[in-house]
Formats: sequence, C-alpha cells, structure tokens
Amino acid sequence: MNRIPILRLGKALLVTIQVDMHDELALALEQDLTQKIWATGARGVLIDISALEVVDSFIGRMLHAIASVSRVLDAETVVVGMRPAVAITLVELGLELPGIRTALDVERGMTLLSRRDEEAEGDVERR
Amino acid sequence: MNRIPILRLGKALLVTIQVDMHDELALALEQDLTQKIWATGARGVLIDISALEVVDSFIGRMLHAIASVSRVLDAETVVVGMRPAVAITLVELGLELPGIRTALDVERGMTLLSRRDEEAEGDVERR
Repeated sequence: MNRIPILRLGKALLVTIQVDMHDELALALEQDLTQKIWATGARGVLIDISALEVVDSFIGRMLHAIASVSRVLDAETVVVGMRPAVAITLVELGLELPGIRTALDVERGMTLLSRRDEEAEGDVERR
Repeated sequence: MNRIPILRLGKALLVTIQVDMHDELALALEQDLTQKIWATGARGVLIDISALEVVDSFIGRMLHAIASVSRVLDAETVVVGMRPAVAITLVELGLELPGIRTALDVERGMTLLSRRDEEAEGDVERR
C-alpha cells in the first residue's frame, strides 16, 4: 500500500493519516490531493491526525504544503483530531501551524467548512 | 501507531483501512468499534477499503466479525471503495461477504445508511 486514500464527503475531501509518513508518501499525498481537489471541485480538505502520537517538523511542513496548495485552488484545509499532547508539543517546538485551521473532530471540521462556504455564497449574492 | 482511527460522521462511524492488517490490529479494531458504537449510539459503520489491493480470507473474516457485532448493536456495516480487481478475486475465491452491504464510495454508503434509518423510523411511526 503506497497511497493514502482520499475520501469524498460532500464538498470536502477527507484524509486520515495513520501510517508513518516518509518523503515519498507525503509527496504522493500532496499530488493526489491537488489532483482530487481539481477533479472534484472540493471546497475543503479535512486531515485527521488522531492516530498520530507525534507531530514533528516533517509532518508540520507536509500539512503546511497541503494547506498552501489547497488555498491556491480555493479549498480550505482543516486539521482535525489533534491529541492534547501533540498540541502541547507543537507549541513547545514553536510549530504552531500558521495558516491552518483546526477542529476537534471531523464533524466540527465539516461545520467549519460549510460555514465558510455559506459566507462565500453570501458575498457573491451581495455583489 | 497501533490503532486504526474511527471517525464519527453524523450517525455513522467511518474507518479507512490503509495498513496491512494482522491479528492484533484486527482485534483492536473490532473492540474499538464495538465500544464506539455503544458509546455514540451509531447506526452504521462505513469501512473504506479503497487502499487495499488484496482482500484475503483474513480480511474477509474481520469484515464479517465487525458486521456481526455491529448488527447485534443495531448498526449496519457497509464496506465502501472496493476495487474492481478485489471484487473479482473475492468472487473467484468464493468470499462473497454474505450479510455485508457494499457501496461504491463513502457518500453512497452514507445514503444507504440514512435510507435504512428513515425506513426504520417509518416502521416505528406505523406501529
């Protein structure tokens, strides 16, 4: 298995990270996600990291790269399921995931994305 | 990482299988799922196997065990994302996953579950 599956949920894409990431896998995930956002017109990307006991600078960079590419394609990235210990370590390491939104779980992440979508539609209507 | 994450999506639970399963991991997943169905009152379990290139009798038994326990707790199991080659192999091996529903992707699986839920509610109303 050399690919992390990307699931479609309404207007969002969902990825659960549950294997140790290495360069090649991270790169494949970034490419697959970019391709899938483009192909499906997804408005958001949810990345579940509840299985991760450690988030180091490598994972931090991967999340940042995914969020940046998604943003260019007008999709927002929300990292969900972060463990409390991971959150503490990230802050201690100074890896505060700038520009990436977080939510406690997938459902809250979905709510965040749909709210953003409604606001965007409101903006279009007001114009 | 020794646990497969179980995500809550409305009244359903979602699991994506993306690592090679072994005895211990399969047992842990069954126990975690049972516990989570009980704790959340979930009505359905979606198991995404789109990452699996091979489904052997071991995985078949695991899916069957999960479906059986879920049914006892009044939750339906839907296996989603099966690859065409996997489907062909399963039939050739005579492993046709009896008692397990399947759907092409997570969204169709969710639709299947919500339809079943509406029917169940209809039954209650008719009584």
